[in-house]
Amino acid sequence: MRIALLGGTGDIGEGLALRWAYHTDHDIVIGSRDPEKARAKADEYETELSSRGRDVKVTGFENKMAADRARIVVLAVPPYHVADTIEAVEDSLSEDDVLVTPAAGVKRDDDGFHYHPPKAGSVTQLVADAAPDGIPVVGAFHNLAAGRLANLDAELDIDTLVVADDFDAKDTVSRLAEEIDGLRALDAGGIANAAEVESVTPLLINVAQNNDGMHDLGVRFR
Amino acid sequence: MRIALLGGTGDIGEGLALRWAYHTDHDIVIGSRDPEKARAKADEYETELSSRGRDVKVTGFENKMAADRARIVVLAVPPYHVADTIEAVEDSLSEDDVLVTPAAGVKRDDDGFHYHPPKAGSVTQLVADAAPDGIPVVGAFHNLAAGRLANLDAELDIDTLVVADDFDAKDTVSRLAEEIDGLRALDAGGIANAAEVESVTPLLINVAQNNDGMHDLGVRFR
Repeated sequence: MRIALLGGTGDIGEGLALRWAYHTDHDIVIGSRDPEKARAKADEYETELSSRGRDVKVTGFENKMAADRARIVVLAVPPYHVADTIEAVEDSLSEDDVLVTPAAGVKRDDDGFHYHPPKAGSVTQLVADAAPDGIPVVGAFHNLAAGRLANLDAELDIDTLVVADDFDAKDTVSRLAEEIDGLRALDAGGIANAAEVESVTPLLINVAQNNDGMHDLGVRFR
Repeated sequence: MRIALLGGTGDIGEGLALRWAYHTDHDIVIGSRDPEKARAKADEYETELSSRGRDVKVTGFENKMAADRARIVVLAVPPYHVADTIEAVEDSLSEDDVLVTPAAGVKRDDDGFHYHPPKAGSVTQLVADAAPDGIPVVGAFHNLAAGRLANLDAELDIDTLVVADDFDAKDTVSRLAEEIDGLRALDAGGIANAAEVESVTPLLINVAQNNDGMHDLGVRFR
């Protein structure tokens, strides 16, 4: 399957690109607003993978072309760029595609990090509202520390929570998640349940900041 | 140390009472609005503990008397009874005491369970606002499934998140938490961070409901 990571030059995009390219045979396409940057990062990921004996092709394109080539389109962009990014690529999306959103609205103040959802109620709902009709939206990969994901020496042994209203799309993304070693996908219900999932992102940062020796945290349900 | 569980006849109160009585030598006092019910439950807990070779005294009193006898006062009541319960016992609290709140505001709709905080922003903040001046408030034990806690055969191997603005009170409650086998206390910062902690409660229910074989879930940060 071909997976495009829009904003794939950023940290969560990098982590997902490296993990999928390392652990699976899916084609990985890096998208960026700047195609040069996308190509440069794709080369960088290829070099990293090659140094570990994985000689795979990672390509880089402007977001719209990246989306056009892929069946799975991951919006690895900050929450405030989600709507713009969808608008930029919507003509490239077809009904067989799946839009995946890993973003969570987080704000920081003197006390710590807090969940700060958009007016839609969650970033996942914002994506669902902005997506063209008929394109299924899946929220996933919110609760993964980007640095840990991008470090292929780091064991994951954690869960990712998946929300969607389209059963087939949810199933497809859950399988893709579980193809990454050490990652288990858990179904957290429909998009209406996304806020509780996204809220875990600031919580992980607060816990990491307040406990010695904890960093790049993930979570396992048991 | 003496620990009072106000609303200790309910399910989370039962779980904490049994675990502390089983794993530690702290004196456990069950509080209820109805002292007869408190005594009956205390006897029931004693019988359960005795059947496992732990012959300890668990006492039962009306909430105010229970609070009066204890240094740690756990508000094991639903969020909508928190303010009433504090009002009922406030004359029994002294500055050496610590108020502990495990409640999270949760509402259910057709889609699942959702975090539904009170106007104060979190139940922990509501407790802090209602507590008499000078009485430290600690949020903890939100993310423990009551049934699993009360089943002394069930392994925990999970975390509880602790929030407080008073360092000593937070430390005291974290130690009490870790005296329960299999429970690790993690510092999630100040009371301003309580909403993200309480939000995990509905999430755990959603995950349990949507994944076969998962129930009475807890969470471990790793």
